[in-house]
Amino acid sequence: MTDQPRHFIDTQDFTREELLRIIDLIGLLKAADKDGACPKLLAGASLGMIFEEPSTRTRVSFEVAMTKLGGHALYLKPGEIHLGVRESIGDTARVISRMVDVIEARTLKHQTVLDLAANATVPVINGLTDYNHPTQVICDVFTMIEHAPVGKSLTDFKLVFIGDATNVCSSLLMVSTQLGMHFTHAAPKRYQAPEAWQAIGRTNAAASGGSLTVTDDVDAAVRDADFIYTDLWWWIGQEAEIPDRTSAFMPDFQINEALLARAPAHAKFMHCLPASRGVEVTDAVMDGPRSIIFDQAENRLHAEKGLLVHFVYPRLSPPSSDLASYHRGRIESFLKP
Amino acid sequence: MTDQPRHFIDTQDFTREELLRIIDLIGLLKAADKDGACPKLLAGASLGMIFEEPSTRTRVSFEVAMTKLGGHALYLKPGEIHLGVRESIGDTARVISRMVDVIEARTLKHQTVLDLAANATVPVINGLTDYNHPTQVICDVFTMIEHAPVGKSLTDFKLVFIGDATNVCSSLLMVSTQLGMHFTHAAPKRYQAPEAWQAIGRTNAAASGGSLTVTDDVDAAVRDADFIYTDLWWWIGQEAEIPDRTSAFMPDFQINEALLARAPAHAKFMHCLPASRGVEVTDAVMDGPRSIIFDQAENRLHAEKGLLVHFVYPRLSPPSSDLASYHRGRIESFLKP
Amino acid sequence: MTDQPRHFIDTQDFTREELLRIIDLIGLLKAADKDGACPKLLAGASLGMIFEEPSTRTRVSFEVAMTKLGGHALYLKPGEIHLGVRESIGDTARVISRMVDVIEARTLKHQTVLDLAANATVPVINGLTDYNHPTQVICDVFTMIEHAPVGKSLTDFKLVFIGDATNVCSSLLMVSTQLGMHFTHAAPKRYQAPEAWQAIGRTNAAASGGSLTVTDDVDAAVRDADFIYTDLWWWIGQEAEIPDRTSAFMPDFQINEALLARAPAHAKFMHCLPASRGVEVTDAVMDGPRSIIFDQAENRLHAEKGLLVHFVYPRLSPPSSDLASYHRGRIESFLKP
Repeated sequence: MTDQPRHFIDTQDFTREELLRIIDLIGLLKAADKDGACPKLLAGASLGMIFEEPSTRTRVSFEVAMTKLGGHALYLKPGEIHLGVRESIGDTARVISRMVDVIEARTLKHQTVLDLAANATVPVINGLTDYNHPTQVICDVFTMIEHAPVGKSLTDFKLVFIGDATNVCSSLLMVSTQLGMHFTHAAPKRYQAPEAWQAIGRTNAAASGGSLTVTDDVDAAVRDADFIYTDLWWWIGQEAEIPDRTSAFMPDFQINEALLARAPAHAKFMHCLPASRGVEVTDAVMDGPRSIIFDQAENRLHAEKGLLVHFVYPRLSPPSSDLASYHRGRIESFLKP
Repeated sequence: MTDQPRHFIDTQDFTREELLRIIDLIGLLKAADKDGACPKLLAGASLGMIFEEPSTRTRVSFEVAMTKLGGHALYLKPGEIHLGVRESIGDTARVISRMVDVIEARTLKHQTVLDLAANATVPVINGLTDYNHPTQVICDVFTMIEHAPVGKSLTDFKLVFIGDATNVCSSLLMVSTQLGMHFTHAAPKRYQAPEAWQAIGRTNAAASGGSLTVTDDVDAAVRDADFIYTDLWWWIGQEAEIPDRTSAFMPDFQINEALLARAPAHAKFMHCLPASRGVEVTDAVMDGPRSIIFDQAENRLHAEKGLLVHFVYPRLSPPSSDLASYHRGRIESFLKP
Repeated sequence: MTDQPRHFIDTQDFTREELLRIIDLIGLLKAADKDGACPKLLAGASLGMIFEEPSTRTRVSFEVAMTKLGGHALYLKPGEIHLGVRESIGDTARVISRMVDVIEARTLKHQTVLDLAANATVPVINGLTDYNHPTQVICDVFTMIEHAPVGKSLTDFKLVFIGDATNVCSSLLMVSTQLGMHFTHAAPKRYQAPEAWQAIGRTNAAASGGSLTVTDDVDAAVRDADFIYTDLWWWIGQEAEIPDRTSAFMPDFQINEALLARAPAHAKFMHCLPASRGVEVTDAVMDGPRSIIFDQAENRLHAEKGLLVHFVYPRLSPPSSDLASYHRGRIESFLKP
């Protein structure tokens, strides 16, 4: 376990081939799990989960994923670990790296996860920052493939993200253009994906054969959508902006039955959750036949398994049974009264 | 695991036969545990433990129980999971159900655990609400059987609960009358079990051959008691009522040596804990020879094992070894460099 | 598991032979771990970890250690468990002892861990108090042996602790004089180890052949040091004293390259962490070639394994395979539909 670790901070750090390989692995692991047969590929390994802010889905999916793989997850929550307070981020990363095999970090600032990765000697997986959410979108690509429209493959998919330019929007824009999909962000002008993200997306699309569209015309956006995705219109700390944001997004950018009626009949609804029901999406859509949000949520579990195996499994070297017996015997003789 | 789950919310939802079957199972599991041989019946399964308020005993007993059975427990504590805040209870239930095999919930309002169960697709176990505490009383019935007076069986037991009409009082009243026991609640009139509970208890007793007595005459109540049980006189949020409650309960309803002296010599003392020593019970009784409170506390562990196995084991289908090898082989070949 | 448990509260409660045996065991367990072959000596056992104040290193090291040994650790954090609030410490100790196999406690007051141990019926390991930090110094002695100067053995080591008379200083003073080492505390007079500690250290040294020196002459102290150790100059609650403490310690007692230059070339730098970089130690020393702080931090993991095995393994009696089959069979037949 001494090689320099590879981290999962941003899908942009990976080739299309490697991203697709991870997604294939997720499929194999999900199939095994559905038969109750998830192999214990990470037996004996520990995952340190650092959360600067609570995140139910990320935490539950990573902890259960690690456990199903035979490993163990430690939840290091806000107030229990000080990143940059009372200890430098680098020291925390170096110390925790000595005790666990992989770190998942949900940090407030993107720079924090970069600093952790720069100092860690085990792989660091970005569990959500103010900039992006790569584990979510790996899950989302896998979910879209599972729910592919008849006759379409990944590079045909049209994914329409409607709403605020959130960290999930950022990662979806990147990964979909990397993988050759057609991505549209539909939002009022001031809430559209910033030019810096668009530049990356355009470069990705040029290389992959995908496309990027940013527009405030929802009707045009959904007309040939395969997947319609939304996210919260505001987050903690943006409460003062609620009136402005509501008047900018409501009613045109809300996902409701009227909007879905303007999309193709096969188009599916996605949401990273948590959702504000009645705000960015209505109950009828959330609970309707075109919603795949709970399949999507479940796939977080399978996606985390794929990511953990991809980054950690090659670093483990289980002992031969001779070596295991040697150590056990040596220690048990020592312990004989 | 696709069948509609059965939940454990209230003993009233179960027949006497099924409750007794759970209690027999607890006995088998405790015997195995005493030999260090708890079978790993829930290997690979995960328990999501939701706590709206901390609860040491419930948390430790469920986590250790699940672990001894080969499974894994996740502690989702106050502030980490928002039930009805930022996400609807239904969505939380549906999402968590996709990642774990069973949910234990200790909620402030009884309605919350009902809402969780209505939406969950895995079994929900009620870990304590403002209305009842069914896991505690399953433990208590098991404990009374272990400490049965010579020559008496369950339907002969006289259980006297002295003190406030707490959630534990509620569940004891229900379960003991369901099982044909003789239950007395001794308390000042304004702290007696409400008529709605008494009505249920009378109906139960009529069917089971048990009996229900509610009285403010402690002397009469303890005269032929087999088990004398008390609980806190006030809880968080009732601090303003402390003077009123103290003057209502003290000294007549305190469990002290003078009171025990008026009970049969074989009568045992029980308490769900935590106790306020010197308030509802004295040190001499807590630590005296008639106290079975620590056996009772330990039995929480065995009771949780029985409940988890009863509700979860029938839903699991471990893979054949062929199927396990197939998936492992397929994934390992994929991972070969 | 009915024998009276032995606790690990203070190295002074143990003979030199037993301390050295624990350190040897740590070495065997670390060697096994380096081969990925840590034996599951505590399979089925649970560790209750009580923290009155968060402590990243202690928590991560104990949780991972217990898991690698095949056991399970529960984290009972501030606000989830009330030591002396709403439940007496004795009751908490007695109840938790019924559910777990060993308790680790990081308490604010040393008296609290003593009270826990007095009431617990399983071993209690002191994870840090306001008085001492015995698990840290067991780790430190092991680390010094790993980094022994050429040709020197334990009783030749000169350990110089520079800085405030912290709980780590207290435990280092005790354990090093117990084991025949030469211990120096270099600090301004008002921050030197109190006379009560010195008296214990002198008695220890008289018996072991070690020595104890307390001085404010840093230059003399480091001149023939093998290991130079420091700790924080202030802790939470001492913020008001920061100016006084800074002016007392700075610049003479800061570990910087100038100070290291006055020590032998082989002298190593140690710190229990977290460190305040630029305060008690400079970046150049922390990250320099003579720093062994991250090896030391990793050894917390191996030390906890040694302590857990030493205190818990002799209390476990795994069932024969016949007994395990008997219980499994009995329970599975009961569960047959």
